[in-house]
Amino acid sequence: MDKNKGGTVLLVVAHGSRRESSNEEVRALAQQIQTLEGCNFTAVNAAFLELAEPSIPDGVSQSLESGADRVLVMPYFLSRGRHVVEDIPAELDKARAKHPDAEIELCGYLGGHGAIPQLLLTMAREHGAG
Amino acid sequence: MDKNKGGTVLLVVAHGSRRESSNEEVRALAQQIQTLEGCNFTAVNAAFLELAEPSIPDGVSQSLESGADRVLVMPYFLSRGRHVVEDIPAELDKARAKHPDAEIELCGYLGGHGAIPQLLLTMAREHGAG
Repeated sequence: MDKNKGGTVLLVVAHGSRRESSNEEVRALAQQIQTLEGCNFTAVNAAFLELAEPSIPDGVSQSLESGADRVLVMPYFLSRGRHVVEDIPAELDKARAKHPDAEIELCGYLGGHGAIPQLLLTMAREHGAG
Repeated sequence: MDKNKGGTVLLVVAHGSRRESSNEEVRALAQQIQTLEGCNFTAVNAAFLELAEPSIPDGVSQSLESGADRVLVMPYFLSRGRHVVEDIPAELDKARAKHPDAEIELCGYLGGHGAIPQLLLTMAREHGAG
């Protein structure tokens, strides 16, 4: 393992579910992102706030162990609720305390992105309406 | 009210939250969709599976009362869990029993759409990574 090689890992963070198929959906999503043309992340991994593994701090640690020196955490959440505003930042603080030399950054949450309204309209049209 | 005028209402259905600001986010999203260029829905409304008003059957009723004869229900959910697979269809059955002459259709859920991986990669790039 070459700690000097650097690079950024994208860590997609979902709530986590008792239903393992929902957690698998998130892991599959991370893999899909990695296969997209022009994706330059060292890796795209999944982590969970609760109910599933890895936790966010463990997901950050695993990402850094692969040789990256930067982790971008993306909340796969739809609303700006307590999980996005308080819980995920608190988990990032735990990860930063374990890895003081790494860059651990937090991205905006999915539901807050300006492209969501258009995507929903597109989905409605694909269904044959609107 | 002219019941013959027809038209389709898009009903965006979210889980619902005790945090009213999260419910307001969904209502604002519905309004944003309605202002998009080329949006031909009679109206775009929001409804909630639980914890917030209107319920899905009430949201369908209100949509039909405005004169539409068709309601397209769009699950604003990320995973194909019990809410998407069982609970929302059960609410639609209640709405159909109340409005047997209306077309009440269910669209795919947001997280299952093929554009989501690319949107997450775009968000990461906008943050300055990947």
